[in-house]
Amino acid sequence: MERGILFVFSGPSGTGKGTVLEEVFKTVKNLHYSVSATTRAPRNGEVHGVNYYFIDDAEFDRMIASGEMLEYVEKFTNRYGTPKKAVEKLLSEGNDVILEIETIGAENVRRQMPECVSIFIAPPSLKELWHRLTGRNTDDENIEKLRFETSKVELMCAYNYDYIVINDTVAHCAEQVLGIIEAERCKVSRNRKVIENILYN
Amino acid sequence: MERGILFVFSGPSGTGKGTVLEEVFKTVKNLHYSVSATTRAPRNGEVHGVNYYFIDDAEFDRMIASGEMLEYVEKFTNRYGTPKKAVEKLLSEGNDVILEIETIGAENVRRQMPECVSIFIAPPSLKELWHRLTGRNTDDENIEKLRFETSKVELMCAYNYDYIVINDTVAHCAEQVLGIIEAERCKVSRNRKVIENILYN
Repeated sequence: MERGILFVFSGPSGTGKGTVLEEVFKTVKNLHYSVSATTRAPRNGEVHGVNYYFIDDAEFDRMIASGEMLEYVEKFTNRYGTPKKAVEKLLSEGNDVILEIETIGAENVRRQMPECVSIFIAPPSLKELWHRLTGRNTDDENIEKLRFETSKVELMCAYNYDYIVINDTVAHCAEQVLGIIEAERCKVSRNRKVIENILYN
Repeated sequence: MERGILFVFSGPSGTGKGTVLEEVFKTVKNLHYSVSATTRAPRNGEVHGVNYYFIDDAEFDRMIASGEMLEYVEKFTNRYGTPKKAVEKLLSEGNDVILEIETIGAENVRRQMPECVSIFIAPPSLKELWHRLTGRNTDDENIEKLRFETSKVELMCAYNYDYIVINDTVAHCAEQVLGIIEAERCKVSRNRKVIENILYN
């Protein structure tokens, strides 16, 4: 059984990576979404076990202590993490997995699993990013400003990724992400058995 | 000006790479097809300067001698080659170029331009390859057999490529090739200026 591909999908707050990923999942086949754990409160419509595992600080601490988090980050006053066991099981059974995580978390995953494929979603411009962040209307002004400053720093992390996709329109961005997934699956390094099968069967 | 990407597109005779590439060109943008030179006679409907430059042996010899061929191969009694100057000009002006060439030629291009991106088109099986080769009805039986044996050896070259795509159906194969082109264009290593533009403009 060939091991699955681990895709790391991240980018600054406000680049719309969640929306892009929803679009990707309408088309892509055989890709598993890894559900993160978080200590933050659910937003409107978010479902436990689908969007996130909503857990409390004590449980989050316990999971870190017992090595059950592949990566975790603190963002503002909340924590986000990737439960390791489920990801490992899927990969070892040959399934491709995508993690939608923060840029700091992505750095941690790359360190632990350098074979992962990392995709950075960027806004078309800083102006557009500010527009999107303030258009959301979920936060007060100070948080918006802090988020924007953080996003600018996060943009610097783009250089550490394998791929960068500009989210100009959701459809175009999703198409490029689908192309990356398709291409990675076609790498010769992952298809040695496929070649053998053609030659000797 | 960022240099363009050189895509090398090849695979054994009978895998239908020409048909796949026609399908790719219906969708892809900003990709230039490099027209090869050959000493073989035009097939039905083939146009000089579009499908190939049909030249004679003396002219082919002259181009080799003056270093005007990026690569060339002898296949059966005919020769095929890639005129270098046009490819270099397109790449240096920032255009992506695709070469549809034989596996031996691909090896030569990889040696001279190791930064090229090589895509191998494979048949789903040897049985299907035989079926396609004999279904073409353009050659006598001995040539068909020789072509099949050559194709089997060419399949071994797949390991030297970056990507492999199985031509199960033209539509599916073309979609994967388009994905590879899209993905290569999203590589961070090719987009450093894009990131700078977002950050500082």
